[in-house]
Amino acid sequence: MAASPTQIADLTWYDFVERVKANPIVFLPIGSVEQHGPHLPLATDTLLPQALATAVAERVGGLVAPPVAYGYKSQPKSGGGNHFPGTLSLDANVLIGLVRNIVNELVRHGVRRIVLFDGHMENQWFLVEAADLALRDQAMLGRDDVKIIKLGYWEFITKATEQVLFPDGFPSWELEHAAVMETSVMLHVRPDLVRSALIPDGPAAAFPPYDVYPFDTGPIPDTGVLSSAAAASAQKGEVVLAQVVPDIAAALREAFGPE
Amino acid sequence: MAASPTQIADLTWYDFVERVKANPIVFLPIGSVEQHGPHLPLATDTLLPQALATAVAERVGGLVAPPVAYGYKSQPKSGGGNHFPGTLSLDANVLIGLVRNIVNELVRHGVRRIVLFDGHMENQWFLVEAADLALRDQAMLGRDDVKIIKLGYWEFITKATEQVLFPDGFPSWELEHAAVMETSVMLHVRPDLVRSALIPDGPAAAFPPYDVYPFDTGPIPDTGVLSSAAAASAQKGEVVLAQVVPDIAAALREAFGPE
Amino acid sequence: MAASPTQIADLTWYDFVERVKANPIVFLPIGSVEQHGPHLPLATDTLLPQALATAVAERVGGLVAPPVAYGYKSQPKSGGGNHFPGTLSLDANVLIGLVRNIVNELVRHGVRRIVLFDGHMENQWFLVEAADLALRDQAMLGRDDVKIIKLGYWEFITKATEQVLFPDGFPSWELEHAAVMETSVMLHVRPDLVRSALIPDGPAAAFPPYDVYPFDTGPIPDTGVLSSAAAASAQKGEVVLAQVVPDIAAALREAFGPE
Amino acid sequence: MAASPTQIADLTWYDFVERVKANPIVFLPIGSVEQHGPHLPLATDTLLPQALATAVAERVGGLVAPPVAYGYKSQPKSGGGNHFPGTLSLDANVLIGLVRNIVNELVRHGVRRIVLFDGHMENQWFLVEAADLALRDQAMLGRDDVKIIKLGYWEFITKATEQVLFPDGFPSWELEHAAVMETSVMLHVRPDLVRSALIPDGPAAAFPPYDVYPFDTGPIPDTGVLSSAAAASAQKGEVVLAQVVPDIAAALREAFGPE
Amino acid sequence: MAASPTQIADLTWYDFVERVKANPIVFLPIGSVEQHGPHLPLATDTLLPQALATAVAERVGGLVAPPVAYGYKSQPKSGGGNHFPGTLSLDANVLIGLVRNIVNELVRHGVRRIVLFDGHMENQWFLVEAADLALRDQAMLGRDDVKIIKLGYWEFITKATEQVLFPDGFPSWELEHAAVMETSVMLHVRPDLVRSALIPDGPAAAFPPYDVYPFDTGPIPDTGVLSSAAAASAQKGEVVLAQVVPDIAAALREAFGPE
Amino acid sequence: MAASPTQIADLTWYDFVERVKANPIVFLPIGSVEQHGPHLPLATDTLLPQALATAVAERVGGLVAPPVAYGYKSQPKSGGGNHFPGTLSLDANVLIGLVRNIVNELVRHGVRRIVLFDGHMENQWFLVEAADLALRDQAMLGRDDVKIIKLGYWEFITKATEQVLFPDGFPSWELEHAAVMETSVMLHVRPDLVRSALIPDGPAAAFPPYDVYPFDTGPIPDTGVLSSAAAASAQKGEVVLAQVVPDIAAALREAFGPE
Repeated sequence: MAASPTQIADLTWYDFVERVKANPIVFLPIGSVEQHGPHLPLATDTLLPQALATAVAERVGGLVAPPVAYGYKSQPKSGGGNHFPGTLSLDANVLIGLVRNIVNELVRHGVRRIVLFDGHMENQWFLVEAADLALRDQAMLGRDDVKIIKLGYWEFITKATEQVLFPDGFPSWELEHAAVMETSVMLHVRPDLVRSALIPDGPAAAFPPYDVYPFDTGPIPDTGVLSSAAAASAQKGEVVLAQVVPDIAAALREAFGPE
Repeated sequence: MAASPTQIADLTWYDFVERVKANPIVFLPIGSVEQHGPHLPLATDTLLPQALATAVAERVGGLVAPPVAYGYKSQPKSGGGNHFPGTLSLDANVLIGLVRNIVNELVRHGVRRIVLFDGHMENQWFLVEAADLALRDQAMLGRDDVKIIKLGYWEFITKATEQVLFPDGFPSWELEHAAVMETSVMLHVRPDLVRSALIPDGPAAAFPPYDVYPFDTGPIPDTGVLSSAAAASAQKGEVVLAQVVPDIAAALREAFGPE
Repeated sequence: MAASPTQIADLTWYDFVERVKANPIVFLPIGSVEQHGPHLPLATDTLLPQALATAVAERVGGLVAPPVAYGYKSQPKSGGGNHFPGTLSLDANVLIGLVRNIVNELVRHGVRRIVLFDGHMENQWFLVEAADLALRDQAMLGRDDVKIIKLGYWEFITKATEQVLFPDGFPSWELEHAAVMETSVMLHVRPDLVRSALIPDGPAAAFPPYDVYPFDTGPIPDTGVLSSAAAASAQKGEVVLAQVVPDIAAALREAFGPE
Repeated sequence: MAASPTQIADLTWYDFVERVKANPIVFLPIGSVEQHGPHLPLATDTLLPQALATAVAERVGGLVAPPVAYGYKSQPKSGGGNHFPGTLSLDANVLIGLVRNIVNELVRHGVRRIVLFDGHMENQWFLVEAADLALRDQAMLGRDDVKIIKLGYWEFITKATEQVLFPDGFPSWELEHAAVMETSVMLHVRPDLVRSALIPDGPAAAFPPYDVYPFDTGPIPDTGVLSSAAAASAQKGEVVLAQVVPDIAAALREAFGPE
Repeated sequence: MAASPTQIADLTWYDFVERVKANPIVFLPIGSVEQHGPHLPLATDTLLPQALATAVAERVGGLVAPPVAYGYKSQPKSGGGNHFPGTLSLDANVLIGLVRNIVNELVRHGVRRIVLFDGHMENQWFLVEAADLALRDQAMLGRDDVKIIKLGYWEFITKATEQVLFPDGFPSWELEHAAVMETSVMLHVRPDLVRSALIPDGPAAAFPPYDVYPFDTGPIPDTGVLSSAAAASAQKGEVVLAQVVPDIAAALREAFGPE
Repeated sequence: MAASPTQIADLTWYDFVERVKANPIVFLPIGSVEQHGPHLPLATDTLLPQALATAVAERVGGLVAPPVAYGYKSQPKSGGGNHFPGTLSLDANVLIGLVRNIVNELVRHGVRRIVLFDGHMENQWFLVEAADLALRDQAMLGRDDVKIIKLGYWEFITKATEQVLFPDGFPSWELEHAAVMETSVMLHVRPDLVRSALIPDGPAAAFPPYDVYPFDTGPIPDTGVLSSAAAASAQKGEVVLAQVVPDIAAALREAFGPE
């Protein structure tokens, strides 16, 4: 291994000073420790945004902060549910506070362009709150020049890529938990962590249009995988990255404008 | 790379279920993103406890949870200070909440023996509070069979190892920030991340017996390194690990008792 | 007017005691004070769930608690955005605490079947957290017989009703903010509050696949209406209620099981 | 029904913009869901301040925000106690946070004159804290032109009106819970919600000069009514409004000064 | 001086163990640091409840915990206002948390009968919340045998004593801030701290029936004393104590019942 | 007794105004209610910093605020442990909030130089957080001229004084809990509170290099005293004060600079 020029974790503080002078986009990958079926590791939702954020950062001269490795409570319809063993989740106020703190700290050291790069669907709204509160903190400190972008990388997958991933029809991003897309990208970026022999096949889960607490485990597949992952392949994962990474890079360049 | 049998991040939930049946010790490394001079990376305090916790886990059949990568605010006397660029720190309530949440989640899934494995001196007291509040939460839920151990790996270094590290006399663990011990262990476990050419030499910092807020930067060395790291070597790092890892393993076996 | 048998607000405590004996489903409508274009009132997201929850309550012998009249911060893609005048929103922790408190209070008085009846898309995840924390509180108090259902009424609209509402194609529930569906139902249940002459027509908003903070107001229509409401009618509103109300009632009967 | 020009709930955001240009006084009614004897509905403490605030708003060209419908925990000496069925109360921090949020949101949209219009004696001190914290928030944002008035409408009842209400002597506002004054005003403004046949008569409660937790229910009348309501009448309610409404309007005009 | 048998501060832990065996009533005096005119010290509201609680404790075999020396924000109508120099006040959540913590700690060590002995009118409602939350904590821990009494000592002053204090008519307890009663009791218990030459005389303050934030300082006397203290005397203070102390003792014996 | 010119508690607000004009250093003693063996009172950690802070204040023209009488949870290695009867401790967030509030209040009234004068080792890190958050609050209010110093008086004891206290060798400040130093100073400043006949003698406690929760009481001496106090004397206490008080005064004069 060698120190990566994109990972804040690997930089010395002297490096950090130099890099921040260029007003880089700083990416904060936000994941989870969540069941991902019999074939994917618990950290899937952290590994993927870290890999993708790094690839995007390389294109835009950005930096990647150490990921938030724990996320919000897994829900049946998008993650199988928090009751699955090994799923280690945070309360809303802790996740909000954690991301708010990190954003404020980056700003304190001169960063002004921040991407909350989400890998776990359940995190979304708490990232919204973290961004809003951090901007309020900055307003109270007299600063109004910070811009935060929140994204889920899957939202950038185009219809064309969807076609490659799901030639027989796209279920929905919620049901894609540990299924074709996530498995394919993992096969591409971390094949060592995929138990290929255990990739499950089975019908997509069907949920009622409401949510029950404590969870009604009836409609949840035993594996925790919400639709078949059988059609996953490293090649499909490569296609996803080849499309999504430059598209995110382009979108961010436009959204943040010139440095 | 390959899936590690000690890292919870790498396990599937099926693996997790199997492993927890044996009532393993689960290690939570807790670090920081903190300046470590011109030669060590910002994540040093996370990398070290992760490496050591993993080595201990291998000896005791334990598991390592994804590390807490952000820690409490760096202080001049033990870390140079929070004002150094790249130092990204958490408020006390966020760090306490984060560790409390993770402990409670491990317990929810059947873990009963937890080690808060600290790599950043400033975290200590907030880990005490997190442990206390998590045990209170468990008491409120009717559980009283959880045991939590908090440790800083440096506390296990024996006089004999101190002698190897500091043949000319031991300064203090506080002043050892980014100095001989940390640099040596990094040279042993992650030499790719050490900028050897930049290892600083200089007199140990001298602080008054009080603390000033906002920091008085007068007594803080410009490099952020609190005493000379010049005598560091990978060999010394190896000596540290060779002593500390089995000693921690033995101590934990005794402290936790039979499974 | 007369005291309604479904509204907790209208009951005396003697009535409440009688009613709770039958283990009724209690509905908590949760709305917002949010811009809804030039034609709908700021309380639209509270009025609608209150009306629908009441209609469902009448069918299942349930009770309706006073609505939560303030909701989470409006977002561009689902509500136009929090910057629109008159939009009065809550921080996440306040909304979570409020709903958690009300649920716990209902349970304290003997209620065991609770529906969080959402009328404001942005509330969703905070209701999840409120439900989870209230159940944890109850577990700490030794109770495990509470069931909470969270729903957004629009999720129950069938394909057939969608067809009636949008004969030319359905945009998405997010873009339906203050548009055909909400306007139609308001025309049916509170025509006095709809400024019919001002119902806007215009192309649907188009947003990039990411979110910007502070909001990028570029893609947001000036009216705050995310797609045309021109095709709204009281009749369509009647169709929605005629389908949705019995379907929700049936779903709840099944989900909660016999009293 | 028709859209009310005083209710923010009924306005569109375009209306809101127009109205706020005139720097109106904005009223926030704050009530509770609390037992009010066998004859008054649980929402009495919300309905009354909403009715009175609306009447005052009409006189001063003000606006009324959607009421805070849940309040602080009922106490034996002023409300019978939180143990009475149907009494749904908030923790202090939730009530404080809720009112603080709403005040800050009004200010964000240009409102500078706010009245916390209390209908539930137990809310008082938490409104003080909400006002203080909101003003601190505004100070942190650099604003110092906000004025907040907190009032309980009963404090404006003159000796002369007291004489009409209680020709045989005034007990105390605390003991007036669900008694002559509240019943009379309800008979005037919402007679449909008063169970006249059940208006209780009975001696005033007598409490010791201390408070016991958990409540000592010994001194609390079974009905929850703290002194006789038998002498209530719609006519008395009318007298109260005829005096209090113009007096509050006059007081606010003087306290806020010219627009 | 000598160790007092009533003050927990003075006991060793061995003494504490012995004393708690008898299930004593434990008093927590709760005061403030608040302006008390030109003649009384800032700690008046702490000194008085400490003195009185100690006198009562001596009669009932009770213990007095170290007082809470900081209280809630002084208000114009009952304390002159928080803007007076030297007035050091707590936010509601801090005061609530502090008292809740202390109560829970006493219970943890076996205390079951606790008196929140208030010396500062503004503290009252936050003590209610602290008591309620502590009892909830205890319920979550499975304990239901704790009884908490909250009292303001002035509430025990009888009409007869009022007559002695105010032969010319009683203003109100609110206006008694730093006036006849407090000055008299201070002259009796801590004459060394009373600046007798500076005891102010002046008309009672007259406030409107509402509260303004930021404070309207118009109606507040310049001295911060809300009504004349000229008639104060040590003798009157003695009368107050001679009546109030045994009455509180008797009330507590009855309220707590036999040990 | 007589009003002390150094104690804020004893001042009137008129005095306070006068004193603050000179920009005095204000000392906040922060202690605990914690077991201190069979011979020292539970308030030892509050009495000592109050006595020392007062002595220093007299030298520098400073003021002493009412002490924070409750502190953070006692730990086995530095205080014997929180399980000892009579030990009444605060949660971290309460202690942080309390000190943060008091600091902010002092600043509000014009104080700019504040010393957090700690008497209880376990408080240290929470004082760091309180100072940091208070300074952030002040920054949000636009103030940047506040300086806070945090100190533990024992850190000022010189090697020479150590020699007097421990002619046979110094254990460590942690093990000095209720031992030679604290007992000596108490014998000097509050001999009335020391049970001299009960001063314990015994070997110093020996702890493993980690901490166990719930506490492992094995290594904790039954008395709660961590090393022998037998060599304590009032004379030694006098020596400590004679050295420490002027040294702290000199250090503060230098650290704060000219008024």
